[in-house]
Amino acid sequence: MLKDDERLDYLLSEEDMRIIQSPTIFAFSLDAVLLSKFAYVPIKKGNILDLCTGNGVIPLLLSRRSKAKITGVEIQNRLHDMAMRNVELNKLNEQIQMVKGDLRDMPETLGHGTYDVVTCNPPYFQTQTKEGRNLNDYQAIARHEIYGNLEDVVKSCSKLVRPGGKVTLVHRPGRLVDLITYFRKYRLEPKRIQLVYPKFGREANTLLIEGTRDGKADIRILPPLYVYNEENEYTEELQEILYGNR
Amino acid sequence: MLKDDERLDYLLSEEDMRIIQSPTIFAFSLDAVLLSKFAYVPIKKGNILDLCTGNGVIPLLLSRRSKAKITGVEIQNRLHDMAMRNVELNKLNEQIQMVKGDLRDMPETLGHGTYDVVTCNPPYFQTQTKEGRNLNDYQAIARHEIYGNLEDVVKSCSKLVRPGGKVTLVHRPGRLVDLITYFRKYRLEPKRIQLVYPKFGREANTLLIEGTRDGKADIRILPPLYVYNEENEYTEELQEILYGNR
Repeated sequence: MLKDDERLDYLLSEEDMRIIQSPTIFAFSLDAVLLSKFAYVPIKKGNILDLCTGNGVIPLLLSRRSKAKITGVEIQNRLHDMAMRNVELNKLNEQIQMVKGDLRDMPETLGHGTYDVVTCNPPYFQTQTKEGRNLNDYQAIARHEIYGNLEDVVKSCSKLVRPGGKVTLVHRPGRLVDLITYFRKYRLEPKRIQLVYPKFGREANTLLIEGTRDGKADIRILPPLYVYNEENEYTEELQEILYGNR
Repeated sequence: MLKDDERLDYLLSEEDMRIIQSPTIFAFSLDAVLLSKFAYVPIKKGNILDLCTGNGVIPLLLSRRSKAKITGVEIQNRLHDMAMRNVELNKLNEQIQMVKGDLRDMPETLGHGTYDVVTCNPPYFQTQTKEGRNLNDYQAIARHEIYGNLEDVVKSCSKLVRPGGKVTLVHRPGRLVDLITYFRKYRLEPKRIQLVYPKFGREANTLLIEGTRDGKADIRILPPLYVYNEENEYTEELQEILYGNR
């Protein structure tokens, strides 16, 4: 079942869940885990969509919190293939389906207003930097805005979610102003924000944001989340997210 | 020098500074202190403007950090009068002037693009609530958007600040989305945000935001500020802001 340099990892604390990843193609990040924890999900039924799903880590994690049907969308053949094998490996074919395609086409393909919740961990980098040019194509596409920019992401999310449904993204704090601008432009009212700080006393390096389609203006800013303590170990709170019971 | 129920308080740790306030008319809040600490100010020269200045607490505090000329604007006669006496009391007539008027008229009165820095601790409440109706007029005007709303405030700030100058506001986190929307609308690019949390593990209840007129898009989110520790005493960090050397 493994190809090239792929390896089979445990998915965090889920002893019965495994995930195929690859150091050169795609390996999931802490941001995906934080997003999966932060996102509101319907518990018993409904439809969830994850754009830019990569190897499918977010659908896998969300499947532990929700019985809703989950769809993942990935543009890269090689990653879509990995995501499909991850669904199969974990015997989640009944709950999770993986679609290959461009997120900008998804409102037409999957239907407008179809989903209760849309999640996305999009590429963070706006332009092809020098660092970016040193990445291979798989990594460059996953990390840089090559197939669509942040506005395209928010626009597609807005079309895909139902009125009253939620869109949840993880991004860098430097894009907060753009995120809020695009959310409002596409009628996703920001309702919850959480900032993630690498350590006490440092500036935030990760931003979690949730908006409600056609929601009323009123935002809550959750308690900050710290990743490392003074001893450079994961904080208790983060250990709970990573290894605790969800 | 004192009128009615006014009293003469010490201004935080400034043993040589005193401030006139009144429990029924106007007494400064922690928010004004946090704003005065958060705001960028030119050290040696320049022009600073403080809108909604109340009894002039922010100009008084800023005068300890900057030799720039500081102008305060207050719409209420009674508060403007108190602010002028505070300037005199502290012998700051050379540095601080107090203007009585509506902030919406100030671009015409004081001149477009005149200031290096504009600060404002505006009224927080959008509508006249039942609670609001129980306040006296002085308090209602200081706390509710009676003379102009948040958009008016941001618009005036934007007209009054010079290109490249900074506008700094304190508000409730629930207005973050509106603040960012109006900042961008009036060409004030948000550059720094700090969130203030009453205690560890609670949601933020105060927001500090700074924008640069015609600035480049790129925002930093500073480390969180906690007001109280687990023993309900001011945290060390807050004590430093309140009583430490600025």
